Amino acid sequence: MPVNLKTIAKELGLSISTVSKALKDSYEISEQTKAKVLALVKKLNYEPNPYASSLRKQKSKTIAVVIPEIANNFFALAINGIESVAQEKGYHVLIYLTHEDYQKEVSIMGHLQSGRVDGVLMSVSSNVESSPDHIMALKQRDIPVVFFDRIYNRLGTTKITTDDYDSGYKATEHLIEKGCKRIAFFAFKNYLSINNKRMQGYLDALQHYKIKHTPSLILQGGNDVKENYQLIKRLLNSKNPPDGIFAAVEKLALATYQVCNELGINIPKQLKVISFSNLETASLLKPAMTTITQPAFEIGEQAATALFKFLDKRNATIPDEHVIIPSVLVERESTR
Amino acid sequence: MPVNLKTIAKELGLSISTVSKALKDSYEISEQTKAKVLALVKKLNYEPNPYASSLRKQKSKTIAVVIPEIANNFFALAINGIESVAQEKGYHVLIYLTHEDYQKEVSIMGHLQSGRVDGVLMSVSSNVESSPDHIMALKQRDIPVVFFDRIYNRLGTTKITTDDYDSGYKATEHLIEKGCKRIAFFAFKNYLSINNKRMQGYLDALQHYKIKHTPSLILQGGNDVKENYQLIKRLLNSKNPPDGIFAAVEKLALATYQVCNELGINIPKQLKVISFSNLETASLLKPAMTTITQPAFEIGEQAATALFKFLDKRNATIPDEHVIIPSVLVERESTR
Repeated sequence: MPVNLKTIAKELGLSISTVSKALKDSYEISEQTKAKVLALVKKLNYEPNPYASSLRKQKSKTIAVVIPEIANNFFALAINGIESVAQEKGYHVLIYLTHEDYQKEVSIMGHLQSGRVDGVLMSVSSNVESSPDHIMALKQRDIPVVFFDRIYNRLGTTKITTDDYDSGYKATEHLIEKGCKRIAFFAFKNYLSINNKRMQGYLDALQHYKIKHTPSLILQGGNDVKENYQLIKRLLNSKNPPDGIFAAVEKLALATYQVCNELGINIPKQLKVISFSNLETASLLKPAMTTITQPAFEIGEQAATALFKFLDKRNATIPDEHVIIPSVLVERESTR
Repeated sequence: MPVNLKTIAKELGLSISTVSKALKDSYEISEQTKAKVLALVKKLNYEPNPYASSLRKQKSKTIAVVIPEIANNFFALAINGIESVAQEKGYHVLIYLTHEDYQKEVSIMGHLQSGRVDGVLMSVSSNVESSPDHIMALKQRDIPVVFFDRIYNRLGTTKITTDDYDSGYKATEHLIEKGCKRIAFFAFKNYLSINNKRMQGYLDALQHYKIKHTPSLILQGGNDVKENYQLIKRLLNSKNPPDGIFAAVEKLALATYQVCNELGINIPKQLKVISFSNLETASLLKPAMTTITQPAFEIGEQAATALFKFLDKRNATIPDEHVIIPSVLVERESTR
């Protein structure tokens, strides 16, 4: 007699539909029942594709979070958001750091192909022009990837970000309203997916308010802290320094504070500063810093929710959509 | 004919010693040779304990770092130290967060028992009185554990910390030298291994300088941010408030800054503040904060080095020793 769903259902005194759902690891079926079904399936060597394999795939009960760095409140908060969802699902969360290094990111993705995790949440290390082959390779092994914050636009999956363009526009507009005429834009050269949008917002705000865009006021920092410091110092020491700075990256705003301390430049009198930042101490700085505060927890939470909709089999695929959760401008002393 | 080391050596044209070392995954043998030996061992179904099993154990090329939180520069820097060593060894680093939750720590350690990692670096979530059974279970499966920062004193393995007692003494002495007479000690109630030592340093410094110890000046905070804030507010609003605060935890120093802002208390005139902290922005705060700065990177680096001495088979066991790397007192405005 062939072993099929009916045999298993009869043996266990369950309905065929229950057995089928158990084999699909449906959230409607208790863990206890799933365990019973799985034990019998094993005993009888019953392995109908794709049911048993989908059950197998689920077994790591682990998701990976791949991020560029952790010395950054944005990611700390986003991980809290991710863990709030994973905890409820009984999943473990592994964190991998790429340290903004594309080769390291490729190596981590290779490591994850072994199936040690059921899914991946990722904020990419590098620029959008790099090859996404390492991410495609995971998708080909049916390990789903959801992006948050820094994304590959071209890959068809769910992406959760803040409103980088609108916030860039609003930050620039805020400085203009406070009287700034020469507004600099500070960013990291490798964060392209978010920088492009933040910078476009900056450029469009300048244009809207008929302020001429000055290419020398765009500063591209990098991983080297000393080099960033020198770049900023050179700009602030130049003949025609900016009177306002919009930093797309918190680290460059903090470096600006340090340079101003050293050069005796008064913030906000001589230079107004606004930055994308989730820094806990923003309000305790001298002076308290005006920030574009990202909904970091919510971004992590939404990214995890999108992934679990797929892992729980409530969605057959991960939809190719871009969810945008707006940031909030918090005005403090540094732009007064 | 029985399959033994000699058979394998002869077949491959290698010495018995080379085969034996290859099976022990010795660093003296090339990866290529190890692969050849392993392939033949598999083909011949040769599995001598403990050689083949020790080879098997090595294959994850992954270590886990289990820490309480990441929104904390100390851990961010310690992880950089750990990764600097792991990178060189070609190992991946997985980070697990316990969120100061002992049950979560137990669950993570259970998860790690499956052998998905070769070793664990750990800063414990909870207090020294909790059962270390979950850590013993890993050791019993030959998965080595090295502690850093927050440790279980009783477990026989390498522990890397800073000089918590001496730094506690020095921080308190610093406040006394600056004229403080009523010095409060702020700590988290669950960080017992480090708190006990930091507090003992505080108590001994008070005694040495013949300052009467006042139990109401010892404040035990916790995970609840609002509650900490209220505790501090109540103390600073009391009839006889402290004139100096030594915070064993950066978060409580920052909460103190916030309370002082709200109550209009001038730091350092009315209240001097010193804190254990690796906060990047310590020098940019209003006022710049005097810190006991821990050698966080070095602590991580040393912990990883101790683990790899064992994983590389240079040490047969992980020595039961406590390595203490001193912290540095950096004086800034908050205690002037």
